[in-house]
Amino acid sequence: MPNRPASQALLRLLGSDLPIIQAPMAGAQASALAVAVAESGAVGSLPCAMLTIETMRKELAAIRAGTNRPYNVNFFCHTQPSPSAPREVAWRRALAPYFGEYGIEPDTIGAAPTRAPFTAEAADALEEFQPGIVSFHFGLPAKELIARVKRRGSKILASATTVDEARWLAANGADAIIAQGAEAGGHRGMFMTTDLGAQVGTFALVPQIARAVRVPVIAAGGIADAAGVAAAIALGAAGVQVGTAYLLCHEATTTAVHRAALKSDAARETAITNLFTGRPARGIVNRLMRELGPISSLPPAFPLAAAAIAPLRASAEAQGRADFSPLWAGQNASGCQEVPAAELTRQLAEGL
Amino acid sequence: MPNRPASQALLRLLGSDLPIIQAPMAGAQASALAVAVAESGAVGSLPCAMLTIETMRKELAAIRAGTNRPYNVNFFCHTQPSPSAPREVAWRRALAPYFGEYGIEPDTIGAAPTRAPFTAEAADALEEFQPGIVSFHFGLPAKELIARVKRRGSKILASATTVDEARWLAANGADAIIAQGAEAGGHRGMFMTTDLGAQVGTFALVPQIARAVRVPVIAAGGIADAAGVAAAIALGAAGVQVGTAYLLCHEATTTAVHRAALKSDAARETAITNLFTGRPARGIVNRLMRELGPISSLPPAFPLAAAAIAPLRASAEAQGRADFSPLWAGQNASGCQEVPAAELTRQLAEGL
Repeated sequence: MPNRPASQALLRLLGSDLPIIQAPMAGAQASALAVAVAESGAVGSLPCAMLTIETMRKELAAIRAGTNRPYNVNFFCHTQPSPSAPREVAWRRALAPYFGEYGIEPDTIGAAPTRAPFTAEAADALEEFQPGIVSFHFGLPAKELIARVKRRGSKILASATTVDEARWLAANGADAIIAQGAEAGGHRGMFMTTDLGAQVGTFALVPQIARAVRVPVIAAGGIADAAGVAAAIALGAAGVQVGTAYLLCHEATTTAVHRAALKSDAARETAITNLFTGRPARGIVNRLMRELGPISSLPPAFPLAAAAIAPLRASAEAQGRADFSPLWAGQNASGCQEVPAAELTRQLAEGL
Repeated sequence: MPNRPASQALLRLLGSDLPIIQAPMAGAQASALAVAVAESGAVGSLPCAMLTIETMRKELAAIRAGTNRPYNVNFFCHTQPSPSAPREVAWRRALAPYFGEYGIEPDTIGAAPTRAPFTAEAADALEEFQPGIVSFHFGLPAKELIARVKRRGSKILASATTVDEARWLAANGADAIIAQGAEAGGHRGMFMTTDLGAQVGTFALVPQIARAVRVPVIAAGGIADAAGVAAAIALGAAGVQVGTAYLLCHEATTTAVHRAALKSDAARETAITNLFTGRPARGIVNRLMRELGPISSLPPAFPLAAAAIAPLRASAEAQGRADFSPLWAGQNASGCQEVPAAELTRQLAEGL
């Protein structure tokens, strides 16, 4: 059953020993996890959406200092929206009771902890490092930027949540497709639809995308252990991308409240929410999601919604509360272990 | 990886050669499909929710005449609601433009094509036939009814859509659990939650339920071919329940418009809707779902919503249109083939 030729093609493309990619998880990891995973034979990833160009350079330098193995650098490629004063007002009004609870003066709230799309400046920085792999979420950047990345030899991965998105990505420069099933944690990569009801589970998505495109398909969503890896390969995936299971690893920077939630029964209840950033993402259900959502028309456009949440999150986390924190996680947190990332990779690889 | 002891335990329980169950699909099949599947070594199912007791007896007699192999008799176990005049009025008002379009006089619309729950009368009929397996959807019937079914030697299967539901079913008499992933077609078996956002994909649901209960777990949702069967077993399932893939088989009674939709690209777009019966069920997106839903607060309680839809469906189908038909299907229709059911079973069994 295992689709071995596809796995071999993917390994040639990735340059790694194992067809396993550690999912980029902005806010929960940086170079340390990427290095540990790369050294273990899988592909470590550096999520850059929340990094300044300067920090990104530092993190890339740290990866280069830490490993000679291939690694993946990940970017969002949304269009930055223009701020809308009326939407911001409505959003802050919805959050007003919480600001009151924590004694936060809304007028003092600054700009968002930004999530930036891939830019020419980021491409400049990449040229200094020439990573083996660059992955994109929310579609692909402009053609000229893709061409620049490819010219330096980087292979391009991109996330699809439907068969149509997979076909589009394969036709527009992706060297492999990440089939992101509805179980996956974090932001939905959806870019040709906004219909959450049309999002497809991993079990149904992987074989249909594998049949629809000629490039290797990487399964993501719900893969937590060796059995999950074996199942994904059986479904026609050439490899897997695993996120949630790495969140408790020593090298991850997952916050204390996030770790506590992942270790509790609460992790069994996740939902897709747009409250934290303005774009749908799956996380463990918490107070904000219960009281205002999980899906609401109130948050400003991605990524602007995050600004008003930031001080609430900081105040609550200072008290050990996860009420306003995005607790990104997939629907299967059963693989989370407090171990070195290399140990988790070793266990996952048993499914190959 | 395959969880062989669990599969053996399930086979002893089912009494069949293969740990494959043809999902009961009310409205799309009767005894002919059940017999063909049973004869092929898998478990055929007779869905009884839409049958009168008299028709059920006839169909059971036909199965007994057609095969000596074990088969499954399936029931819903909802509580029948009291009709609500205001909700019925609101529902018919929402449908008024369609009634106008088809020249249907709303006052002439009769009672619903009913979906009945399991009753003492049904248990009486079962005692004449003593089927090896009885399965329930929407929880379990009253304790005394379960006891009656068990006393005659029937094994009980029941559907869980969450880990909590699986634990409850195992503690309340289910001999095996059907883990119904969010990809599955037809009615969601959910009975401890109404939160569609909390429904879990097959890939995440199966391993978590397998870990949570001691009885065998049957994976359902998105399993369309041998690769899907292999993947489900890898995830810890003892067996599989496959529905959608059987819908085009010669022995199914799937309507012409439903068959046409399954064979078209439209089958790639499904959604969970409550418009057709009042309860959430997954089907191929059609006009009614696009225009009024897919989820709406307007339909009367299950199963009453179906009454007002029935004449629209009949009129549209007479013109070859699927605009008002429930086109139940899961998120992976890629396994549908116009073959004898025995041939499909043979192909699926290659994944074991």
